[in-house]
Amino acid sequence: MSKITFLSDFGDRDVYVGVIKGVIAQINPKLAVIDLTHQIPPHSLAAARFCLMNAYAYFPNGTVHLAVVDPGVGGIRRAIALQLAHGFLVGPDNGIFSGILSQSPAITAVELTNSQYWLTQQPSRTFHGRDIFAPVAAHLKSGVSLKELGREIDPAKLIKLNLAECSLTETGVVGCIQYIDHFGNLVSNIEASYVQGKTWYVKTAGLTIPGCETYADVQVGDAIALIGSHGWVEIAINSGNAQLQLHIELGDEVEVFLRHLM
Amino acid sequence: MSKITFLSDFGDRDVYVGVIKGVIAQINPKLAVIDLTHQIPPHSLAAARFCLMNAYAYFPNGTVHLAVVDPGVGGIRRAIALQLAHGFLVGPDNGIFSGILSQSPAITAVELTNSQYWLTQQPSRTFHGRDIFAPVAAHLKSGVSLKELGREIDPAKLIKLNLAECSLTETGVVGCIQYIDHFGNLVSNIEASYVQGKTWYVKTAGLTIPGCETYADVQVGDAIALIGSHGWVEIAINSGNAQLQLHIELGDEVEVFLRHLM
Amino acid sequence: MSKITFLSDFGDRDVYVGVIKGVIAQINPKLAVIDLTHQIPPHSLAAARFCLMNAYAYFPNGTVHLAVVDPGVGGIRRAIALQLAHGFLVGPDNGIFSGILSQSPAITAVELTNSQYWLTQQPSRTFHGRDIFAPVAAHLKSGVSLKELGREIDPAKLIKLNLAECSLTETGVVGCIQYIDHFGNLVSNIEASYVQGKTWYVKTAGLTIPGCETYADVQVGDAIALIGSHGWVEIAINSGNAQLQLHIELGDEVEVFLRHLM
Repeated sequence: MSKITFLSDFGDRDVYVGVIKGVIAQINPKLAVIDLTHQIPPHSLAAARFCLMNAYAYFPNGTVHLAVVDPGVGGIRRAIALQLAHGFLVGPDNGIFSGILSQSPAITAVELTNSQYWLTQQPSRTFHGRDIFAPVAAHLKSGVSLKELGREIDPAKLIKLNLAECSLTETGVVGCIQYIDHFGNLVSNIEASYVQGKTWYVKTAGLTIPGCETYADVQVGDAIALIGSHGWVEIAINSGNAQLQLHIELGDEVEVFLRHLM
Repeated sequence: MSKITFLSDFGDRDVYVGVIKGVIAQINPKLAVIDLTHQIPPHSLAAARFCLMNAYAYFPNGTVHLAVVDPGVGGIRRAIALQLAHGFLVGPDNGIFSGILSQSPAITAVELTNSQYWLTQQPSRTFHGRDIFAPVAAHLKSGVSLKELGREIDPAKLIKLNLAECSLTETGVVGCIQYIDHFGNLVSNIEASYVQGKTWYVKTAGLTIPGCETYADVQVGDAIALIGSHGWVEIAINSGNAQLQLHIELGDEVEVFLRHLM
Repeated sequence: MSKITFLSDFGDRDVYVGVIKGVIAQINPKLAVIDLTHQIPPHSLAAARFCLMNAYAYFPNGTVHLAVVDPGVGGIRRAIALQLAHGFLVGPDNGIFSGILSQSPAITAVELTNSQYWLTQQPSRTFHGRDIFAPVAAHLKSGVSLKELGREIDPAKLIKLNLAECSLTETGVVGCIQYIDHFGNLVSNIEASYVQGKTWYVKTAGLTIPGCETYADVQVGDAIALIGSHGWVEIAINSGNAQLQLHIELGDEVEVFLRHLM
């Protein structure tokens, strides 16, 4: 009952995701695939990085995470597989995994050069998800060792995709919106540790929003700042959509004010 | 090969659904999760109630149904698990299950107070799906008894969310549109039993629409009233979208006329 | 660990897909269902035909493919199950399988007349996916032989849905756009064999687009023609959306020019 997770920007109207599951089932019909999401905005490495980072810790030891957001497919970017303390990552070397790796570094890294574990010796130039990454993930989860998959490379030299950083001010910390979810909740890049156990509020887009603990701390329809389930300072509207109602977008500035510094 | 079904308003672009499956897999990797839908409109208890009610009967005895549409998360609403004659329900006590319960009452009900079966002793204030409901569903499906999950409560005192009722007229029955599906089919709250075996038609939005048996009973593009697969009087357009083409919305009035009463 | 694939136009906001998985689980809880896609545009047999044809080859021998795009449900169209060299097909006889069958003909065909293998002796008139096709697929995958499912029919007399054909010109071949994917890639009906190993370009919508091998052969934002992963000539934009940026739609003409003929 081993698991492979699968994240991509393939959407849900074509058969790309289904075909990849067929390829995996051909190699080992006992493998179960858990979809993380396939609605990463096309080619958005930042969204993929964020989603992978927030999902990784919730899966069993030994899970293989297959991730295919791959605008550089067919070009010079490397195909890689990584072993971490608690799991494996398979996908393109384009920074997609750098959120996970900032929390749990790679122990071993290989470039996927052994075509014996691919679907075909002559992979397409546009769909390495099907032709290279999925078969490699299936073989890895079925007992093939990482080092059989290709030549070892230096984990320190993987491509990194770094977040905009937040910076301390005299009265708190200033950052920006790094992700907006399905509910319109606005996730900043300010870590929970800055506000935990303190009295605080947020300013963004000309608004002052109180720091609270949960949606129900304010009236239905009111804005609230809180520590979201991902572990970041988040702005939401109780039973509403903060993105649409506050007109805030990805990258917009968010400033946290801490009462004890004021 | 036991099954947990899972319904939510989490959408498909974030990793919320995937994370919940990871939490379940950590507790018991043999459990398989069947998605009912995650496209319940955000916070819509009425749509969740309707969808759960229409799916429940099609699953094997002993299935655990996990449902998380939870606008009151972190507030005073209770977290519950229920045992019915043929299955189990896990989710918030906010009326989401009241459609199922109107057809199959709860035998035993517990409030989820035993944090031993949660993901963490200190659950987040905004994502009980991950921290409480999913782990409880996984433990319940893995053999933990309902009564171990918390303190027993009175099934008669669960929160109810009732449908608008339909009412008899001299010539038939009048109700309203309670649900609109992906095809634009308009599902009323008038039960099939009112029209079964009779000659009937419907009036809505100024239109008179014949009661028939299936789409092919009218020309492509024509409107039709029929008993839908859910067991309610439904308005559709053969190979078309009744919502868009007839400009009818949720809550709009529908009147059934029975020939033998006229 | 046998597999059933499932393709439909049911979308993802209702419980239709989930209910079908419940029906399958009731018959045999060991069966795993792989979703191909449920976002076929409502009633679009052409899109369903294309998607099924492109997925079929990637699944293990013996896979049962359940496909329900069924605008004629409840009318005179037949319900069928087919045995091919490497798998089985279950769905309506409306041409949905004719892409697969053009590559791998049916060995045996039956009309689903044996109601013993249906969910109910009195199926609804609007949801044969739940009441007939899903239970038949589950029984077939569980060991019931094709011939038990109904009366044999002539595979040569199945309904066909043919593609617009492309035609040779003095300088190449002219065809049209047969499918547009989630990324906005424009898939023509011109087979790879026409251009493989040659020097070529494409004209469409007043534009001249070079034939290349992969996205990275042109600058980000530039248009490119290539052999797509489906095996057809495809028009794309490197890291962009060709449908939106080139204003090309389904059915638009595409002409391939081969240098050695000019």
